[in-house]
Amino acid sequence: MSAASQVWHDVQEIRTRAPLVHNITNFVVMNTTTNALLAIGASPVMAHAEEEVEEMVSFAGALVINIGTLRGPWIEAMKRAMRAASGRGVPIVLDPVGAGATRLRTDTCFALMEAATPAIVRGNASEIRALAGGAGETKGVDSAHGSDEAVDAATALADRLGSTVVVSGAEDVIVGGGRVRRVGNGDVMMTRVTGMGCTATALLGAFAAVNENTAAAAAHGMAVMGVCGEMAAERSAGPGSLQMNFYDALDTLTQDDLGRRLKLEA
Amino acid sequence: MSAASQVWHDVQEIRTRAPLVHNITNFVVMNTTTNALLAIGASPVMAHAEEEVEEMVSFAGALVINIGTLRGPWIEAMKRAMRAASGRGVPIVLDPVGAGATRLRTDTCFALMEAATPAIVRGNASEIRALAGGAGETKGVDSAHGSDEAVDAATALADRLGSTVVVSGAEDVIVGGGRVRRVGNGDVMMTRVTGMGCTATALLGAFAAVNENTAAAAAHGMAVMGVCGEMAAERSAGPGSLQMNFYDALDTLTQDDLGRRLKLEA
Amino acid sequence: MSAASQVWHDVQEIRTRAPLVHNITNFVVMNTTTNALLAIGASPVMAHAEEEVEEMVSFAGALVINIGTLRGPWIEAMKRAMRAASGRGVPIVLDPVGAGATRLRTDTCFALMEAATPAIVRGNASEIRALAGGAGETKGVDSAHGSDEAVDAATALADRLGSTVVVSGAEDVIVGGGRVRRVGNGDVMMTRVTGMGCTATALLGAFAAVNENTAAAAAHGMAVMGVCGEMAAERSAGPGSLQMNFYDALDTLTQDDLGRRLKLEA
Repeated sequence: MSAASQVWHDVQEIRTRAPLVHNITNFVVMNTTTNALLAIGASPVMAHAEEEVEEMVSFAGALVINIGTLRGPWIEAMKRAMRAASGRGVPIVLDPVGAGATRLRTDTCFALMEAATPAIVRGNASEIRALAGGAGETKGVDSAHGSDEAVDAATALADRLGSTVVVSGAEDVIVGGGRVRRVGNGDVMMTRVTGMGCTATALLGAFAAVNENTAAAAAHGMAVMGVCGEMAAERSAGPGSLQMNFYDALDTLTQDDLGRRLKLEA
Repeated sequence: MSAASQVWHDVQEIRTRAPLVHNITNFVVMNTTTNALLAIGASPVMAHAEEEVEEMVSFAGALVINIGTLRGPWIEAMKRAMRAASGRGVPIVLDPVGAGATRLRTDTCFALMEAATPAIVRGNASEIRALAGGAGETKGVDSAHGSDEAVDAATALADRLGSTVVVSGAEDVIVGGGRVRRVGNGDVMMTRVTGMGCTATALLGAFAAVNENTAAAAAHGMAVMGVCGEMAAERSAGPGSLQMNFYDALDTLTQDDLGRRLKLEA
Repeated sequence: MSAASQVWHDVQEIRTRAPLVHNITNFVVMNTTTNALLAIGASPVMAHAEEEVEEMVSFAGALVINIGTLRGPWIEAMKRAMRAASGRGVPIVLDPVGAGATRLRTDTCFALMEAATPAIVRGNASEIRALAGGAGETKGVDSAHGSDEAVDAATALADRLGSTVVVSGAEDVIVGGGRVRRVGNGDVMMTRVTGMGCTATALLGAFAAVNENTAAAAAHGMAVMGVCGEMAAERSAGPGSLQMNFYDALDTLTQDDLGRRLKLEA
């Protein structure tokens, strides 16, 4: 099967099975990531009360944890949900938003990874370096996209967790299953819309719910993100219209779109 | 008066009087339901601090309670607001998001309905069945739209509360005031935009604020929701553009639009 | 330098320096104000946990505090962030959403202004009157735009704080630095999109981060808000499309747009 056919297979699975993706995420992107999951064909649910996360995750095909606007009480709910997911074999996708920027965020990521091992961690180069540890300073620009440094950090973290690690950037790097995959799709205008990284993470939840090969699922999800982003950017006068067109692209994506555009090196 | 004239009368009342609609709602839809209320001509306010909800609701024409992203401290604020609304004759609209899916949600709905009786409850078939109780299992698909089962559950709940109950679906069923009304407007693409149900509930707040016949208000609100949704869908390439066009439709809706499109069986 | 050149200078500074704007804001506008800040070229961050706000603000070029959906625990985080900002010379912009409407909101504003002095306070006429105190009743319509009354209240508050005070309305009034500036740009359709006032406040954070003359920064920010709002309104069929086009306008704004449209009386 060609790479495009493999990605398309996962898209069709999502559209057919509409997997429930349970999100405990940040306030900025709750609306937009829900819309992205609906547009690709998944069934999103947002639930973060300690009293219900274990029950909710028991129906889920994947659990997405995003620490973007953390407060104390949420951390315990995240841990409970992750432990429950882990016990039931529900794959967990972790977005370590701002890891390395404040101690709360970095420490929380380590505590969460201790509570249960995520199947996939997706962040930018700074965030992944912060979690990889010992791989240099976490401050500064996120410019190491696709560079040796980002791959090194992702590899270190992937090896330590036994998981798939995605470094988003101009080129996305996916390390997992003993391989390094690269996705070259996307458009720089996507960086002017908030929560596009968080949206990628949410979509990875949908892909992980339908494809047990999490490294492949992560690469396919990033590819769909990038392809739909560049389709949307072509029709857009700026970031406002990009956001709108992005949902339309997720909803209308065809195998032909993937065939013509996909830049997935595996 | 024709049905369209009656709906139009309420729309004009909302636009003229701009009733304050006090919402205690979920994080996913706070922005989008506020925008829908502004677009139809109401004055929305979001306030959920225990210290201020009673004061805020005292200015309001309606109170909208939505349990979509519940956490413990919010429940007490919801109860306080509902009791204060009830004491002042401010109609309450309740959206039992996810009732039946987790115990927290189901139990909270019963506790809220105990604190004060909502004038209108709006949910999908599963949620209404969960609140009607004894009407069968609450899990499973929401496909009983407009079916006898949904009407039975709505009728049971409406009778118990002495309120109006709305079951949203491909056909909306409104049970109240001794009658069953049905709205056939809408478009399936609306199900691919998050919070369209919550938006309907918020709009019902605006309609309940200007029309003391709550069963009629509920039917009129659902009709406007459906008509504007189908107008938006016709102009849209997908769910992203649908969401945008939906606000424009609420803002620009005319009596003529209602006259041509309305499918309200009363 | 012409007024348009001065405004343009600040826009270019924002686009070049991409100042970090730390926001502790309300749930309704977290997504939309982040998008506005990205579109103008700033680097927004949303962080409100007590444990991290001091650390986060230490990287920031400005701190934006917005009390729109207040709850108790947030107030302490706001105070901590404001004190830390004050200690480091990071300018603070305060949006007293709903001051005058409930005691919680009014009292909180006074407590926050006690914790540290904002460089800029931006509100509508009712809110500014509530903070100015003794300047009459705070209830009722927000129709005193640009009126003597609004200027009096703004002047009283500006004098008391030694800060810049902005009263938003059909005409924006900016009182600070011993002068009164007026911005006549904007479009009435902007009042049908939620959070446009909050968005103005967030943008003022970006302008205050690059221009030490806070009164001028505030006027320039309000001018860009108004110019982009009217550019967006011209292309829009309603408030839904206005919101989308507004981000595109912020992103694509040129010196020429400012030259042709700017209505800034200084």
